[in-house]
Amino acid sequence: MQLADDERIDQLQTQGIQIIQSSNVFAFSLDAVLLANFAEVGKHSRVVDLAAGNGAVGLFVARKTDQDVTLVELQPRLADMARRSVELNNLQGRVNVLNIDLADTWAHVAKDSADVVTCNPPYFKVRPGDVQNPNEALALARHELTTNFDTVARITSGLLKTGGKAFFVHRPDRLEELLQTLVEHDLAPKRIRFVHPKADREANMVLIETRRSGKPDGIRILPPVIVYGEDGEYTPEVAALIHD
Amino acid sequence: MQLADDERIDQLQTQGIQIIQSSNVFAFSLDAVLLANFAEVGKHSRVVDLAAGNGAVGLFVARKTDQDVTLVELQPRLADMARRSVELNNLQGRVNVLNIDLADTWAHVAKDSADVVTCNPPYFKVRPGDVQNPNEALALARHELTTNFDTVARITSGLLKTGGKAFFVHRPDRLEELLQTLVEHDLAPKRIRFVHPKADREANMVLIETRRSGKPDGIRILPPVIVYGEDGEYTPEVAALIHD
Repeated sequence: MQLADDERIDQLQTQGIQIIQSSNVFAFSLDAVLLANFAEVGKHSRVVDLAAGNGAVGLFVARKTDQDVTLVELQPRLADMARRSVELNNLQGRVNVLNIDLADTWAHVAKDSADVVTCNPPYFKVRPGDVQNPNEALALARHELTTNFDTVARITSGLLKTGGKAFFVHRPDRLEELLQTLVEHDLAPKRIRFVHPKADREANMVLIETRRSGKPDGIRILPPVIVYGEDGEYTPEVAALIHD
Repeated sequence: MQLADDERIDQLQTQGIQIIQSSNVFAFSLDAVLLANFAEVGKHSRVVDLAAGNGAVGLFVARKTDQDVTLVELQPRLADMARRSVELNNLQGRVNVLNIDLADTWAHVAKDSADVVTCNPPYFKVRPGDVQNPNEALALARHELTTNFDTVARITSGLLKTGGKAFFVHRPDRLEELLQTLVEHDLAPKRIRFVHPKADREANMVLIETRRSGKPDGIRILPPVIVYGEDGEYTPEVAALIHD
């Protein structure tokens, strides 16, 4: 396996997957691990992961199914890293990487064909005068420069079978807009889990499960994820996802 | 003070307020205590409490301000209990009870005049075939028979000054609808706090703070309220609100 100078291979023992990382362009973090854990993927589910980055979420959930997993990533460098990570884990027969704008996904993956869509999208809106990360790769991954949540929800809804599920990780400050956008695209919010750095701190992430064409008014707020205990160490739940 | 046969006087030492209760028609519960605690009421805030029931929320928050507090309650028996509780606490000069449909509040309280509105509304939608509580007083307090959340949000928004705050307690299964309805009525959600019976259980209440004409995308998810510890006793936070 060829690695660029700034690349390394990270392995999450509990996930049983090796991922090529580079802090210069993209390195998966707790968001991806929590999203992959939150996503309920059946043994024979067809999965699409949008805004796949270096493929962490897609590769983590690929272990849960024996069907195709499609990773969609706009940035060529990240898509290339994801492809090499797929090979590294010998999943090239089943896990496919598309280096395209996610807005064009329907041209490559049939509509109404996915059982599950996962997405860890860019979190931050772009407003006039905002200062973005001068590193273009990181800016594209974090800011809504090339896509936005409305597009993510629209494409997701079209990919899913009726009753199919989509799982998102995002920022709670946009909660109202996120829920409204999902509903506008026929994705009914079903389960929500907030992630708090500590038990007495505000949430800094939200995990959202939706069902295509699901009924409204059925939202369940799961017990919160608390990342660190009072001792500053990972709580048992989070440690079990990260450590071996 | 005249008490009916089925009435009792409950006192929350920490709240320093006595409330006439009757399990036959209405008794305040943890919802009211949590809402009153969640509501940020300035020393000179004019407050309106909608769907006031026996007046618990309004009387609890009356201690925080030296200005008028108006309690709005449709049911004559509950409004009468609230009026007698106001007298019991010697607040009749400042706390007023209106026995009206909350939809008519603007005819009695000037629009754009309130700094704070609080509301613990009926939680449950009425659907064809639903079985309601055969006790009419309890059914009216719990089910949207005579009002609904859209009306609550519309009336609240009209009562508030620009920048005024409203505080609600409701059920999290309706979260998406609640947030959308609030935004439709120019009430921007600002702080949200979920209430979990135990740390590993789903939330069964949600506290929502909104600001009239506030900016969107500023939602803060506060640390959760956990009601009972692993030992089955109230957690210190909740015990401090209830016990003396």
